[in-house]
Amino acid sequence: MESFWCELHRDSSVPLYEQLYTYIKSEITEGRLPYGTKLPSKRKMAEFLKVSQNTIETAYEQLQAEGYVEVKARKGYFVQASDELEYIPRHTKEEIKTLPSKEQYQYNFHPSQIDPREFPFDRWRKHARNVVAPENHHLLLLGDTLGEMELREEIRHYLYHSRGVKCHPDQIVVGAGVEVLLQQLVLLLGSDKIYGIEDPGYHMMLKIIQHYPNEAIPISVDAEGVQVEQLQDLNVDIVYTTPSHHFPYGSVLSINRRHKLLTWAEENTERYIIEDDYDSEFRYSGKTIPSLHSMDRTEKVIYLGTFSKSLMPSIRISYMVLPNNLLDIFKQKFAHYHSTVSRIDQVILASFMKSGDFEKHLNRMRKIYRKKLEKVLSLLKTYEESIQLIGEHSGLHIVLKINNDHTENELIDLSAKANMKVYPLSNYSLKKGVQDAPQFLLGFAHIPEHELERAINQLLKAWHFK
Amino acid sequence: MESFWCELHRDSSVPLYEQLYTYIKSEITEGRLPYGTKLPSKRKMAEFLKVSQNTIETAYEQLQAEGYVEVKARKGYFVQASDELEYIPRHTKEEIKTLPSKEQYQYNFHPSQIDPREFPFDRWRKHARNVVAPENHHLLLLGDTLGEMELREEIRHYLYHSRGVKCHPDQIVVGAGVEVLLQQLVLLLGSDKIYGIEDPGYHMMLKIIQHYPNEAIPISVDAEGVQVEQLQDLNVDIVYTTPSHHFPYGSVLSINRRHKLLTWAEENTERYIIEDDYDSEFRYSGKTIPSLHSMDRTEKVIYLGTFSKSLMPSIRISYMVLPNNLLDIFKQKFAHYHSTVSRIDQVILASFMKSGDFEKHLNRMRKIYRKKLEKVLSLLKTYEESIQLIGEHSGLHIVLKINNDHTENELIDLSAKANMKVYPLSNYSLKKGVQDAPQFLLGFAHIPEHELERAINQLLKAWHFK
Repeated sequence: MESFWCELHRDSSVPLYEQLYTYIKSEITEGRLPYGTKLPSKRKMAEFLKVSQNTIETAYEQLQAEGYVEVKARKGYFVQASDELEYIPRHTKEEIKTLPSKEQYQYNFHPSQIDPREFPFDRWRKHARNVVAPENHHLLLLGDTLGEMELREEIRHYLYHSRGVKCHPDQIVVGAGVEVLLQQLVLLLGSDKIYGIEDPGYHMMLKIIQHYPNEAIPISVDAEGVQVEQLQDLNVDIVYTTPSHHFPYGSVLSINRRHKLLTWAEENTERYIIEDDYDSEFRYSGKTIPSLHSMDRTEKVIYLGTFSKSLMPSIRISYMVLPNNLLDIFKQKFAHYHSTVSRIDQVILASFMKSGDFEKHLNRMRKIYRKKLEKVLSLLKTYEESIQLIGEHSGLHIVLKINNDHTENELIDLSAKANMKVYPLSNYSLKKGVQDAPQFLLGFAHIPEHELERAINQLLKAWHFK
Repeated sequence: MESFWCELHRDSSVPLYEQLYTYIKSEITEGRLPYGTKLPSKRKMAEFLKVSQNTIETAYEQLQAEGYVEVKARKGYFVQASDELEYIPRHTKEEIKTLPSKEQYQYNFHPSQIDPREFPFDRWRKHARNVVAPENHHLLLLGDTLGEMELREEIRHYLYHSRGVKCHPDQIVVGAGVEVLLQQLVLLLGSDKIYGIEDPGYHMMLKIIQHYPNEAIPISVDAEGVQVEQLQDLNVDIVYTTPSHHFPYGSVLSINRRHKLLTWAEENTERYIIEDDYDSEFRYSGKTIPSLHSMDRTEKVIYLGTFSKSLMPSIRISYMVLPNNLLDIFKQKFAHYHSTVSRIDQVILASFMKSGDFEKHLNRMRKIYRKKLEKVLSLLKTYEESIQLIGEHSGLHIVLKINNDHTENELIDLSAKANMKVYPLSNYSLKKGVQDAPQFLLGFAHIPEHELERAINQLLKAWHFK
């Protein structure tokens, strides 16, 4: 009874029974009177609230008529939640605290950002409008576990013509980001495999492996690329590499090393190469570097690609090309899983690619990013004696090697004080303390062209070059 | 040289140099002449093709002018892929074989299908149109790892009012399907945990655990629900359960068992209950069963929900509510991961929910499904002596217990011969051979109402009831 602190206003124009009815109804719909709760008897309630039993009865009957309570013979009134979902008007306060938002910098030089302002929203919307239509209602049901065939066919076509990857669409697996695919690969290849990870490199693979029994070993990278001898020496089974555009240095694995790497993999049936071709779309010097996959004659290369750079990171669509011998194991191990990507999104993307809009977008973005890169290079040229540029032919970032009297930490602090976020190479290196001078990844893609000069000058000033 | 089998037609109106130029260009753009390949010298090529050196030179110069080859002084002509992506017209045949499509049945009684024809495509498109707009370009960049705050706030609101789940939006994690979230949970809770899985039940959890070092033990389900004593006896740490609508029987975990289950969990800090509330939206008898989470006072329940039934299975948006003590570990373990759901889709869904369209859609679908269920029940009523119905108050399927002279396999074969796919309970049971009569899950949601009579009659006829 103590829970029925219903304050009745006897001088109100609203009848007492209605006040009681409104009170109990809100207690039910707002979850404070759960399903199955027995209401006090009419007599007890009347005594408690000091009103007539008639008043209680009228309120209870109203609640019963509307389905909020039910009468059980000789037992009384019980809460019965409404048949329909009850949404409560939003003025009900329920103590929402939101966490403070992330730090906001005036300029954030994150290396993997794109320029979202140049996205062809109109074209994408057009494709979306055509796909999200009653005649396509089947797209609401579950699709192919490996991904929609029409998207995989577009990916195959794209990979063949832009990266020399020859595969059948059945070999392509679509997933919600490279992490999802890498996790599947780790499970697919088995818990006894030792992974070799380029160092410096993209360490997501390392973070993923930490959740599994597998071991991950950093493999040094020199000017020619990953040092293949180390793979042999360290008993590596699977190597994770970025041969066409090393992350973060942008270097290309030499032809010599490519052959060595493939030969290493061919020596043992358990060995595989994971080729992450993460931003192959953006090369500005006019020379397309063929994929390692295109040189692979013995199905040793697992090719990984993503739409994160070419479309948007937030769409969460990536793909891998599996060698045929892994494909069967994959299907067997993951047959009961569902695709991790919305089927509608897959079909929209397939339509975007098939129409030629994807190609146009890529060509346009390549020009935009090239222009931005040229601007950055021209702004930094004056300082070439103390700022060495690395990886300036491709991608959405360059690496700066800073030769002044400041340490890495000092340069980070100086940038932060000037409201800028920079990303030191040490974030991407496992072996610390080997740098002769501080190095930073400088992502330029997302900064509007007209602001680049200001951004770079602000950085140069913060770092005491100006 | 043997790779230059260019057939020149001397009597063609197309000049010889142009034939050669077209041939080499297509070899380059179609990937057969990779980047860096040295072309034969003009002299050798002229000899080989028996044309003048002038012809070769004109072709090479044309290729050079268009950027397909470059000249290196004293070395010759080298293939240089075009700066832009080269897409080849689609009439080029590249030996595409597509796999045969899945078996198509006239009626497929799969238990977890929805009716996609009734989806409010217009409304969804309207929300999508508003979200996919240049002013929202920030939505192309990566969002919150746990999910967009505006969607998590809508989910919180929905869960509070429809399921009595009280949580903070910060406790909600959005993921690309229940499988993705369950995998994260297994990694989060640790490899030493023993899982108890309802049997019969939804065995995805079992299939997921098979990839990890953890053990999974089937726990029997009786009329009151999962048998809590077994959890104690079998040293289970984590139990996976469907308390409000048992899969596949549709039964509700009794209040007594709910208390026992929560008490069991409270006895050890390492114990947790995973509550999968997979189709809580569809209950037709007017009584909402509160979630187990709503009774949990000590943060022992991990609540799992999905939009697979309420919107569409192919959208791949599910969520979990983590107890606060697991939240920190989750953030620590998965801080570097990206969300597995498209940010744009999350914001479209949040907008759909906020506008009231989701509620309207749910109410409408509940009426449609209820009508279909009533139709199915009325069609089967005549056979109640030999067809027992189980779980007929909620969800998108019922269970039929068949008492005629046929075995489960015979009934499957008879259905298949009549072009229908049925799903035996044994698919969802680990302990075989305990059934006194064959049982089948009968999904009715996706069959159009006007076809239900025909579908059910066809099944009854196939099973020799008619």
